[in-house]
Amino acid sequence: MEEQIDTLGKSFVDHYYHLFDSDRSSLSSLYQPTSMLTFEGQKIFGVDDISAKLNQLPFDQCRHLINTIDSQPCTSTGGIVIFVSGSLQLAGEEHHLRFSQMFHLTPTQEGNFFVQNDIFRLNYG
Amino acid sequence: MEEQIDTLGKSFVDHYYHLFDSDRSSLSSLYQPTSMLTFEGQKIFGVDDISAKLNQLPFDQCRHLINTIDSQPCTSTGGIVIFVSGSLQLAGEEHHLRFSQMFHLTPTQEGNFFVQNDIFRLNYG
Repeated sequence: MEEQIDTLGKSFVDHYYHLFDSDRSSLSSLYQPTSMLTFEGQKIFGVDDISAKLNQLPFDQCRHLINTIDSQPCTSTGGIVIFVSGSLQLAGEEHHLRFSQMFHLTPTQEGNFFVQNDIFRLNYG
Repeated sequence: MEEQIDTLGKSFVDHYYHLFDSDRSSLSSLYQPTSMLTFEGQKIFGVDDISAKLNQLPFDQCRHLINTIDSQPCTSTGGIVIFVSGSLQLAGEEHHLRFSQMFHLTPTQEGNFFVQNDIFRLNYG
């Protein structure tokens, strides 16, 4: 069970940031109308506005480097909570921005998962 | 609704770190047998082991300084997810340790909340 959760968390994280770095508009497939994102304190509701926000971030190309992934089952929903720390490298810039992000994934009726809760913060040094 | 969630999140965070800094053993009141804590990658299950872990941390007195609190409703459980960033000052040490922590609070049958999921990470600079 624990190994499954860790494997699931890592698979999601790899998939999420791969999409973010290679084809950001396709991240919309991971959210639903009830999803919530808090991005640096700004609250955004629903897949459409979340997708718009992610696509309008003030940088085009970026690369996420992941340091830690902690996953736990969310026993009351059959979902999973995932806590990520890492750094974000923007194209053409040398320094990295450190960040932390949490996801709460909830099962869909089809047996997949979608992002119910997403909170992102840069870590200022 | 949004304001209620923010108020609830802030109240919990204030309460949690106040207990942590003033009477750490009483944190056990916030966990239950199904609770999970991941502390710097170490997984701990259930209120008893979580309480033991928190009380055995290798420092006695500390103070948490909170920088950001982001709260969202967890629509599928009636709970709330809370993401905290801040710094931890240990007694007798000058520098602060930066940390991020997430909590998933779930309602009890009595209408209170307990910590279902708790993930803590120090942010290394």
